[in-house]
Amino acid sequence: MAAPAIVLLSGGLDSATALAFARQDGFEPFALSFRYGQRHHVELDRAKLVAAAAGVTRHVIADIDLRVFGGSALTDAMDVPKHDSAADLGSGIPITYVPARNTIFLSFALAFAETVGASDIYIGVNALDYSGYPDCRPEYIAAYETMARLATKAGVEGQQLTIHAPLMYLTKAQIITEGTAMGVDYSITSSCYDPSEDGDACGHCDSCLLRLKGFEEAGLSDPIRYSV
Amino acid sequence: MAAPAIVLLSGGLDSATALAFARQDGFEPFALSFRYGQRHHVELDRAKLVAAAAGVTRHVIADIDLRVFGGSALTDAMDVPKHDSAADLGSGIPITYVPARNTIFLSFALAFAETVGASDIYIGVNALDYSGYPDCRPEYIAAYETMARLATKAGVEGQQLTIHAPLMYLTKAQIITEGTAMGVDYSITSSCYDPSEDGDACGHCDSCLLRLKGFEEAGLSDPIRYSV
Repeated sequence: MAAPAIVLLSGGLDSATALAFARQDGFEPFALSFRYGQRHHVELDRAKLVAAAAGVTRHVIADIDLRVFGGSALTDAMDVPKHDSAADLGSGIPITYVPARNTIFLSFALAFAETVGASDIYIGVNALDYSGYPDCRPEYIAAYETMARLATKAGVEGQQLTIHAPLMYLTKAQIITEGTAMGVDYSITSSCYDPSEDGDACGHCDSCLLRLKGFEEAGLSDPIRYSV
Repeated sequence: MAAPAIVLLSGGLDSATALAFARQDGFEPFALSFRYGQRHHVELDRAKLVAAAAGVTRHVIADIDLRVFGGSALTDAMDVPKHDSAADLGSGIPITYVPARNTIFLSFALAFAETVGASDIYIGVNALDYSGYPDCRPEYIAAYETMARLATKAGVEGQQLTIHAPLMYLTKAQIITEGTAMGVDYSITSSCYDPSEDGDACGHCDSCLLRLKGFEEAGLSDPIRYSV
């Protein structure tokens, strides 16, 4: 019987690929998504499609309200701009950064893992494309794993919790190539910061540009619809 | 001007004392409590009183639904038994342990800290009275701090986040003695696992027994009402 693993699933290209890696690694995947004040419903709709397509055992959507802290920093962070381009990331932390987001997401994954007896968590973070985010760096993931092993009942009882970040060192093109080889259906994923009501991608935001560039470099065509 | 600090506040004796320590250490305290499926309203009612008495700048109550993961482990954990006595804690992890609870609480505190520009977080965990809980141990708190420093924008920019656990090595009697010296009003705190509608403590549960023993050893009388 396959061991359970928790996969953080956003409905985007990266987490859909992380889910495929979990399956390829021989785990029985449980998916976890969040309703955390996203501006559009498309992200969660796609997460549900991706979870269903992968045949996960259970897909939990947890409600967390990060807006409760108020303050302009967070409000600004939730109001995703159009010009937070990947090319600018080298110069600092992008303004799309949400305080402690991955730390909160992983903490819920840890609770889910303890509940179902999983000792493996998958997260689709990437150090190359998003190097401006502190909580996407390999040293952050390693420190989280160390903390999580001390945090849990399972850890105390000798079970070694592992945080898997299979996309960490892959380019967007490599992620798409690997995912395609594993059978990921990218037509049901959404990466756009500002999709239409129908879920069509804008084609202009940084996330769209990064995705389109990835497909181009992979020599594949992006199967999603763009509104332009 | 005093620097801001986030204080995790449950309405119990320990966190009320941790809040007093934050104030004594010269910080401007911001309090954070959680509505996470507690069986009674008394805990949050008392947290509000304690926050008001301490004159915190802001008291945020965040909603988190840990029940979303279902599973008997978590449900059982939320259904606090009467017989999880302090004396039994040496033999293993208490069944009142809630998966990843402090990890989730601290993660929200981290988001709050980033939002208000705080680099200090206070938590009233204690290694002596609750040694059975993995997420109350000093090595856990140290690992959390290491992770948190890597997780945040502030950390990347050189600000050193600190997790303060001022009660870590104090006995319950010492906590009460120190808190009393700092002017903590324990009459508005609640420690009982199963209080009456009016907030009267049962006097029988492990938390009540531990509290009563602490006051006795401190040579003080507990100012709260007991229903027995």
